[in-house]
Amino acid sequence: MRFVVGSHNSAQAVFLVEDDRAVNLSLAHPGVGADLMGLINAPALMAEIARVGLSGETLPVASITPALPVAKPGKVICLGLNYIDHIKEGGYDVPDYPALFMRSLNSLMAAGEPMVRPSCSERLDYEAELMLIIGTGGRHIAEADALDHVFGYTVFNDGSVRDYQRKTHQWTPGKNFDQTGPIGPFVVTPDELPDGATGLKIESRVGDEILQSANTSDMLWSVARTIATISEFTTLEPGDLIAMGTPPGVGHAKTPPRWLRPGETVEVEIEGIGICANPIVDEADWLRSTAAE
Amino acid sequence: MRFVVGSHNSAQAVFLVEDDRAVNLSLAHPGVGADLMGLINAPALMAEIARVGLSGETLPVASITPALPVAKPGKVICLGLNYIDHIKEGGYDVPDYPALFMRSLNSLMAAGEPMVRPSCSERLDYEAELMLIIGTGGRHIAEADALDHVFGYTVFNDGSVRDYQRKTHQWTPGKNFDQTGPIGPFVVTPDELPDGATGLKIESRVGDEILQSANTSDMLWSVARTIATISEFTTLEPGDLIAMGTPPGVGHAKTPPRWLRPGETVEVEIEGIGICANPIVDEADWLRSTAAE
Repeated sequence: MRFVVGSHNSAQAVFLVEDDRAVNLSLAHPGVGADLMGLINAPALMAEIARVGLSGETLPVASITPALPVAKPGKVICLGLNYIDHIKEGGYDVPDYPALFMRSLNSLMAAGEPMVRPSCSERLDYEAELMLIIGTGGRHIAEADALDHVFGYTVFNDGSVRDYQRKTHQWTPGKNFDQTGPIGPFVVTPDELPDGATGLKIESRVGDEILQSANTSDMLWSVARTIATISEFTTLEPGDLIAMGTPPGVGHAKTPPRWLRPGETVEVEIEGIGICANPIVDEADWLRSTAAE
Repeated sequence: MRFVVGSHNSAQAVFLVEDDRAVNLSLAHPGVGADLMGLINAPALMAEIARVGLSGETLPVASITPALPVAKPGKVICLGLNYIDHIKEGGYDVPDYPALFMRSLNSLMAAGEPMVRPSCSERLDYEAELMLIIGTGGRHIAEADALDHVFGYTVFNDGSVRDYQRKTHQWTPGKNFDQTGPIGPFVVTPDELPDGATGLKIESRVGDEILQSANTSDMLWSVARTIATISEFTTLEPGDLIAMGTPPGVGHAKTPPRWLRPGETVEVEIEGIGICANPIVDEADWLRSTAAE
């Protein structure tokens, strides 16, 4: 199944999607609620929705304004270096453990929303990434069982402000600027994709300029191994998000560097999942527009 | 004012404390709720409580079982290197920007609860820290205004699993083991302490063994400067937690290393705020006790 969380005529809802049509599940099933948490916590309802499929009144997917798939994820853990050619372009050694950092909710937003270039830096960079949403939680999850804990896969752009990322050895500031990490809009259940979402083309683009182009099979840490590794130290909970790292081709590694500029729209596409597209907006303009709301 | 969040005869509540007596504010004022978020969001109620003081039925502070002061903080941002002698003992250079990392809620717990030594490592270490709770949120907070954004100060033990902290350059795993970061139990409003909580003795101990002993005036980044620095990249929100880094004397820098051992109780004390004491428990025993609940 393929879901979009978003609003159509103002009320936020969960939509089931087939091709370019969608049906409002939140209206049809009161247990669904306004984001994916209802379905994550109700496997029986998921089975019922899978059985029924797209039925009743449909609307065009394009008429939905996307929102975050999970409104308030308990935690967001990101892999920093997971494609070998991206490790080399950043000047890092190939590690024997994933580089992990966290993002706060303030840094995340839906597909379609402005991706904000901060007033203190012009070095806003894109990172095309596969993101997974935890369904069943757990601690000490064995690699062999790990894929059973995935609710679905979505698209992430791990927007990074590079000079702030490297202010110290800890990447937190550059990975946590407000409104720099778009997620979505489509969440695809694992049964629709290869095991562990491998073998999928992953790209980032501005217009017809291809910035990154790779395949999720090039990831050093698989989805299953990542879940096992992270759950060794922390309890994964339903709705937690894990970002799987980015392939080579990021802006700061290009000569000259290729920073995102206001007026551009950056797209991240993963085969079989969808496209996450966001316009770049200067912070001053963004603050003006949100103040006017 | 001095608060404790916790339970007395099972219902969780916010208590106002004077010396060794406490009064249940959640019973007296329906707006208070079960953790500090009610008071953080209601300055008028805070003023009323300050005016009335300890009145009505009181109970011994010792009869309260502490809980987290804020049950679900939006984010928890920690400074890694903020006391010059601790920077040197860790082998790091003195930076011109704070090393920042994040902790997830799973890693945090109340004073008094078990501090869990994981089954995968014996290198569980203590870190005595001042922690602040954001009251009024904001972005781009000027250093001169920053202290107005502090709701209160509490005690934090930034429990760290050192071999996992240094698996890569990113400290996230070692700082995020389940049930390793105790907070509390007392939250003290800024009017009861020196500006920015400077000049306070800060110690960690096991029994009569003094592990760390320093003064909050030795912090490189003041509370005000830290709030200004962090709010340059992220919107601080009411209830967000900021941990101010630890002084020298951590276990991994001692010869031989001084790891925390099951059966010990580690205490962190900050002058004018209180003591956060937690027993060290092996993960296997902790899992058995939580399974039995």
